[in-house]
Amino acid sequence: MSELIGEEIKYQGPRFDVVRKIFKNEKIEYIRDIAQTKDAVVVIPITENNEIIFVKQTREVVGEETLELPAGIIEEGEDNKVAGLRELKEETGYIANSIEFLTEAYASCGFTNEKLYYYVAKDLVLDKQQLDEDETITEVIKIPAEKCIEMVKNNEFKTASANIALLHYYLKYMK
Amino acid sequence: MSELIGEEIKYQGPRFDVVRKIFKNEKIEYIRDIAQTKDAVVVIPITENNEIIFVKQTREVVGEETLELPAGIIEEGEDNKVAGLRELKEETGYIANSIEFLTEAYASCGFTNEKLYYYVAKDLVLDKQQLDEDETITEVIKIPAEKCIEMVKNNEFKTASANIALLHYYLKYMK
Repeated sequence: MSELIGEEIKYQGPRFDVVRKIFKNEKIEYIRDIAQTKDAVVVIPITENNEIIFVKQTREVVGEETLELPAGIIEEGEDNKVAGLRELKEETGYIANSIEFLTEAYASCGFTNEKLYYYVAKDLVLDKQQLDEDETITEVIKIPAEKCIEMVKNNEFKTASANIALLHYYLKYMK
Repeated sequence: MSELIGEEIKYQGPRFDVVRKIFKNEKIEYIRDIAQTKDAVVVIPITENNEIIFVKQTREVVGEETLELPAGIIEEGEDNKVAGLRELKEETGYIANSIEFLTEAYASCGFTNEKLYYYVAKDLVLDKQQLDEDETITEVIKIPAEKCIEMVKNNEFKTASANIALLHYYLKYMK
């Protein structure tokens, strides 16, 4: 087993910090740079017609347009479900009267501690979207659940979070 | 649409850099910090008995032990399949005589450009493991494919990559 022998903050930013940890095993000393972030929540909103609600988004970070589920950072001290309901409302305008845990997973545990928590939201009522000023959501789109699984199979979703959410939902509720 | 109006390297590290990009939309100027990394490859090695080969790993970045598929960085100019075969051999000792594209996905496109490419490896022959000196793999484990899907359903895999690989494999080959 490796032993932690040192730690240093290398960078502090608004979205994530970089923390360098130094470890020692039987053979050598080695480092791990960590993009340290808050956790995030992803919501799969299902309408009574068995459609899933997506947001079309321009992702500057990867230079692509993506079709994603409503999602966002869980703020300090905020309950996961509360964060999910808040992001759903802000990004799509929908209020959910039911929200249920689906799964959780680390985004990429070789270099970031980011963990995503996935929830299914139902009993939806449309209210008003409240986008942030730097929000890049351009459209809210409903797609029948069965069609979503075909789209997953055809590699049409570009993000890990959409793939994980839809496939876990399929395995748990549609199989 | 937002316009890129500036770019600055904030941090350079061995695993990823931090690049700040400044954008302007109709309302405001805003920034995106990007953890800029090389892409990665994930391999699902299937034995002739329909077992999937995993590596048990200590992940310092999240402070947990994980059960993961063989995976690693695609080096500059390296072909994805070659990288997959290399990582498979280094981490598990297996040489694959067949490797086939399964899917691809961005890890977390709100803050990192990391993209993972997934491949299914077959016709396996056991040779010799070649772990890096800072490698934290402690065990190579075979699990029947059907059992893996049960484990996914029970949220037993902690990483996005294992979930995506197994669920896409299930959808494409086991359904």
